Amino acid sequence: MLLPVSLPFPLPSLAALVAAAVPPPDLMASPFASLLMVWPAWLLQADPGSISNHSLEVAETLIQVGRFLVIFLAARTLAEGMVRLQLPTILGELLAGVLIGVSGFHLLIPPDSGARLSQWLLDLVAGLSGATPDLVQSLYNESFPGLQQVSLLGLYALLFLTGLESELDELVAVGLQATTVAVTGVVLPFALGTIGLHLLFHVPLVLAVFAGAAMTATSIGITASVFGELGWLRSREGQIVIGAAVLDDILGIVILAVVVSLASGNSFAIAPILRLVVAAAVFVAGALWLSRTAAPAFDWVLDRLKAPGEVVVAGFVVLILCCFSAQAIGLEAALGAFAAGLILSRSRHTEAIQETVKPLVALFATVFFVLIGTGMDLSVLNPLDPANREGLVVAAFLLAVAVVGKLAAGWSYFSIVPTRRLVVGLGMLPRGEVGLIFLGLGSQAGILTPALEAAILLMVIGTTFLAPILLRLVLSTPESGVVEQPL
Amino acid sequence: MLLPVSLPFPLPSLAALVAAAVPPPDLMASPFASLLMVWPAWLLQADPGSISNHSLEVAETLIQVGRFLVIFLAARTLAEGMVRLQLPTILGELLAGVLIGVSGFHLLIPPDSGARLSQWLLDLVAGLSGATPDLVQSLYNESFPGLQQVSLLGLYALLFLTGLESELDELVAVGLQATTVAVTGVVLPFALGTIGLHLLFHVPLVLAVFAGAAMTATSIGITASVFGELGWLRSREGQIVIGAAVLDDILGIVILAVVVSLASGNSFAIAPILRLVVAAAVFVAGALWLSRTAAPAFDWVLDRLKAPGEVVVAGFVVLILCCFSAQAIGLEAALGAFAAGLILSRSRHTEAIQETVKPLVALFATVFFVLIGTGMDLSVLNPLDPANREGLVVAAFLLAVAVVGKLAAGWSYFSIVPTRRLVVGLGMLPRGEVGLIFLGLGSQAGILTPALEAAILLMVIGTTFLAPILLRLVLSTPESGVVEQPL
Repeated sequence: MLLPVSLPFPLPSLAALVAAAVPPPDLMASPFASLLMVWPAWLLQADPGSISNHSLEVAETLIQVGRFLVIFLAARTLAEGMVRLQLPTILGELLAGVLIGVSGFHLLIPPDSGARLSQWLLDLVAGLSGATPDLVQSLYNESFPGLQQVSLLGLYALLFLTGLESELDELVAVGLQATTVAVTGVVLPFALGTIGLHLLFHVPLVLAVFAGAAMTATSIGITASVFGELGWLRSREGQIVIGAAVLDDILGIVILAVVVSLASGNSFAIAPILRLVVAAAVFVAGALWLSRTAAPAFDWVLDRLKAPGEVVVAGFVVLILCCFSAQAIGLEAALGAFAAGLILSRSRHTEAIQETVKPLVALFATVFFVLIGTGMDLSVLNPLDPANREGLVVAAFLLAVAVVGKLAAGWSYFSIVPTRRLVVGLGMLPRGEVGLIFLGLGSQAGILTPALEAAILLMVIGTTFLAPILLRLVLSTPESGVVEQPL
Repeated sequence: MLLPVSLPFPLPSLAALVAAAVPPPDLMASPFASLLMVWPAWLLQADPGSISNHSLEVAETLIQVGRFLVIFLAARTLAEGMVRLQLPTILGELLAGVLIGVSGFHLLIPPDSGARLSQWLLDLVAGLSGATPDLVQSLYNESFPGLQQVSLLGLYALLFLTGLESELDELVAVGLQATTVAVTGVVLPFALGTIGLHLLFHVPLVLAVFAGAAMTATSIGITASVFGELGWLRSREGQIVIGAAVLDDILGIVILAVVVSLASGNSFAIAPILRLVVAAAVFVAGALWLSRTAAPAFDWVLDRLKAPGEVVVAGFVVLILCCFSAQAIGLEAALGAFAAGLILSRSRHTEAIQETVKPLVALFATVFFVLIGTGMDLSVLNPLDPANREGLVVAAFLLAVAVVGKLAAGWSYFSIVPTRRLVVGLGMLPRGEVGLIFLGLGSQAGILTPALEAAILLMVIGTTFLAPILLRLVLSTPESGVVEQPL
């Protein structure tokens, strides 16, 4: 059998071919089956002689490696700037995303935004690889989900680390306060947002309910990152906020289910909602019970492991076990990641595990936060565009309610020990990725008007960027005698 | 606009939706555009009411998380067994891949093998998510490239670490020996294999040349892993082997280009081959020059960085810069990873970087080696199947030549200082993923007969598993006075 013209030539790259050869082709399968692994299926339908397969592989590797390069150069440059301004680094990462994303230089574009990468970037990769710019854009879009998987790994690692650094007794001790903060921080923004939109802006009730629901979110990722960096995670305030953010996440899943059920106009099904509430209760109880009991068993196993890298791998196995379990009972994998950290927070090896997880967080959580920024379309902020004005007015209202509602949650709980309630309120402020999830759901369902969609996006952007700045300002002025010393 | 029936319901999972909402949908785009990110395009053509989107998201997360679980539980269990048998852990990882892959329990199947996942596993994920088993298999196949990206990250991290742990002066000092070993280890197996196949087994010359080329490979990944674990990386033998393996990799790229050119029957184009040789020379010279000069600049920058995680991120940026550069000039990204390590091996922060890279290696290089194992189809080993016999005879010949050719390379160089030549020869032995790449290329081109394909696969499997075992046996019996003490 002669070689077809589509054979990799002039120069097949071993590295790019690893994907094709790991694993080797099955002897029984078509001799071309392995092509399917390296090249997206649609390419096989293209003229096989037009672009050499080698060019495709080189382009794919350049895209995958280059994407990391763009992310890290931008994120770390801005993060360094933030450190010098005494602001949290996450702000730099979010801004970096905005700067290189759809609102900026188009160096990292989420495929579903419909935007194209910057032409000079497409030309560069095309020139280096021999592919066409259009092909580079297609390959980029095809491999984007892989980057999202890596970014989720970063989120899980961050929440795992947050759990590891949490003080279980403290977290349980502030359980009631955290619950009060979570419930108040959900009810107030939801009620104020929904009623205000309906009465003041005459938004139909279903839309108002949806927008209100979007305001209940708290980004546990951003909160954990800021508190962790400022050394406030193990303070009483930090533990109240983390506990409340976790509960907020659980409440958010229930709210989403209810709102989508209402909005879909179908008969309201109570059974799945109840099942979800039970699952959440079982999850919290199970996580707390395991946190008190499972660490010795883990240590016993770990002490018997001898293969190199045993600490990080053992921790990672617990992490993915918990992610899998949380997802399997209908909650989020991210909640499982926090639970895994909490469970191992009493291990004798906690510090060793923390050391091995930190590089993962530094690398991949950065990707997560940059990706959040890339999709934020700041063009809706331009007040000179008349089309934006309606959205801006609604946005100003939503932002005010979003800030007031969460700040009020900081004053909602009873505590004998004095705590800095402003810190708690600000900690609950950022909507971040969770707010974007609500927005994405509404947009995807097509129920939001452009003005309302822009307003929700601006509310999310505003709280997300305000929270780290305000927290930094507040935390740099300790009230002696009142503040719990951070560790 | 009413909600379509395909809306996530009864229970949208926030975690699974992160992929949909990071970034948020562009306001100008179709309201359904964001669907494209979470769900493979072909699903959109399916009956939208049949399976809820929520089920798809849960299934996707369970697959992605569960895959890691299967990999790590299998790999680490067997690795622990290997440690107790005083064998390198990589053997356990390769075996774990075989055990859970196409030759074993079908828990981790490379999509291009054409095999299906184990039915109980498909039923389990389907039951937990509400999707059908067929859908689970499809989602699994769709998201497999993401796992391969992660495994490549592991390979790069391993080679980066190998470079970091290398002794530059020693590597340069043994440069001539390494070159001799590399060239001998390429020429001998190629010549013996090609001539033997053609004269003894009457294999057509083009096929014989191809099979001979497949025998020239050396898996730098496996060699680096074994030498690193046994503490022999910085010995003179270790540095000769690593240097020779890198050169072997570069020679391999040239050989591939030549062989594919010959096999394709087209007019033999010398220009791209020459360009490649020049690129390789520039690359080696550039890497060596930067290794001597770039570390102070890197340290200067790193000393000025203040954002947390600066060490791992700075190292990672150099890593991806080098991967990008190597790929851009037509070499492999993996070679760039080794060069990056070498360049930073003289930094004042080398040890700190090593500590942050080790967790990445422990996690993701494991994935890389397990994936190699999953694709190895051991059914060709069964001598009871008459169809296998021809392949087995050829395989026995190829294996013998593959072992003898590389072992002889250990005796090919001149050295004033006594070195353990058997260690060098054995270090060059494993074909691993590089051998599989050659095999994949031949299979994909359809030029190999089933018997020859099986024989090459067995040669790769044999050398890959023999090398760690034999190295361990040889290295446990030091010849005092002759051996360079490992650090």
